[in-house]
Amino acid sequence: MKTLNKLFKITTNKRYDIVNITQNVKDAVAESKIKEGFVLVYPMHTTSGVFINDVDGSLLDDIIDFMEKLVPEDSDYRHNGPHEANADGHIRQMIAGHNTTLPIIDGRLFLGTWQTIYYAEYDGQREKDYLVKVLGE
Amino acid sequence: MKTLNKLFKITTNKRYDIVNITQNVKDAVAESKIKEGFVLVYPMHTTSGVFINDVDGSLLDDIIDFMEKLVPEDSDYRHNGPHEANADGHIRQMIAGHNTTLPIIDGRLFLGTWQTIYYAEYDGQREKDYLVKVLGE
Amino acid sequence: MKTLNKLFKITTNKRYDIVNITQNVKDAVAESKIKEGFVLVYPMHTTSGVFINDVDGSLLDDIIDFMEKLVPEDSDYRHNGPHEANADGHIRQMIAGHNTTLPIIDGRLFLGTWQTIYYAEYDGQREKDYLVKVLGE
Repeated sequence: MKTLNKLFKITTNKRYDIVNITQNVKDAVAESKIKEGFVLVYPMHTTSGVFINDVDGSLLDDIIDFMEKLVPEDSDYRHNGPHEANADGHIRQMIAGHNTTLPIIDGRLFLGTWQTIYYAEYDGQREKDYLVKVLGE
Repeated sequence: MKTLNKLFKITTNKRYDIVNITQNVKDAVAESKIKEGFVLVYPMHTTSGVFINDVDGSLLDDIIDFMEKLVPEDSDYRHNGPHEANADGHIRQMIAGHNTTLPIIDGRLFLGTWQTIYYAEYDGQREKDYLVKVLGE
Repeated sequence: MKTLNKLFKITTNKRYDIVNITQNVKDAVAESKIKEGFVLVYPMHTTSGVFINDVDGSLLDDIIDFMEKLVPEDSDYRHNGPHEANADGHIRQMIAGHNTTLPIIDGRLFLGTWQTIYYAEYDGQREKDYLVKVLGE
């Protein structure tokens, strides 16, 4: 069994953002030289998440609009106070998904034609990081 | 370490559908002869997902109703246009979950009593496929 | 490759509850002596789920309020009848997530600073169980 652990840093300019990280995951899989295995893409935070969706950029705007309507930034959250006001981000992450596991077959990340790996930021404008852990043989 | 990769094709008659695929996953686990490991059930698309839920069929209708109310088919989505109109499917998949990982113990898929593995289709009536990847020893 | 399977029993006093199970998962990882691998935290039911979120207790109340508004306990669910009335629990689990996979690096569960593993109960007041499966080397 072999493994490779890579931490990637990310800082978004906006509070909410969705960033295509597919190439970073592919690079980690290539570097690992693992032929058959799983790769876990795992944000080290609780106000960001990782999910698979379509490559089309206009869909990302639809997703951000949808999430703002479903989990408004401003609401009567108990978690929000003088020091922090990010309850919406914690709930959005829970709804859209925190981390994901992907297949590696024959030495490459096995994705569908339009599948894109996204890092979704719900409380950005500061440095965060996500782990890519490849495990297999 | 051993692995088995199986691609299953699926075409639903309806645009939205939820299909019990538990037996296919069990068969792949048996064929792999893996005693201890994980199985990843992974749709190759971004308008379908896999999740675990109860075996009761009436619940599936409740889920479809709930999703239609939460993420309406027709809304003012930027992603929708003359060639494609499936933004609802992309968002539903994000909400209900894209893929799932299940445990294998002592050579069998280790499921709770009522646990059923579902392939959820949000943009059907055409051929799609999902991967079952078994990994372990 | 090594593995460790641990089943933990849990009974909540309330119908809906969110319980911190981080220490149980850490203990299983330590007991497994696995240095590099994945741990799957997997409820054996379809009305409970596992997710990662912030350690702050007031956020848990926000989450419970949010879920009650999004998926009301009482609604016109087909699944509900004289014997069972837990359709809301099945749908909440689908929305918030059923199970999760976490990284093990250098012999320890690799969590972000505030990351906490929660068992979310949507139909409690009876004994349930969740599996912690550690796999790696």
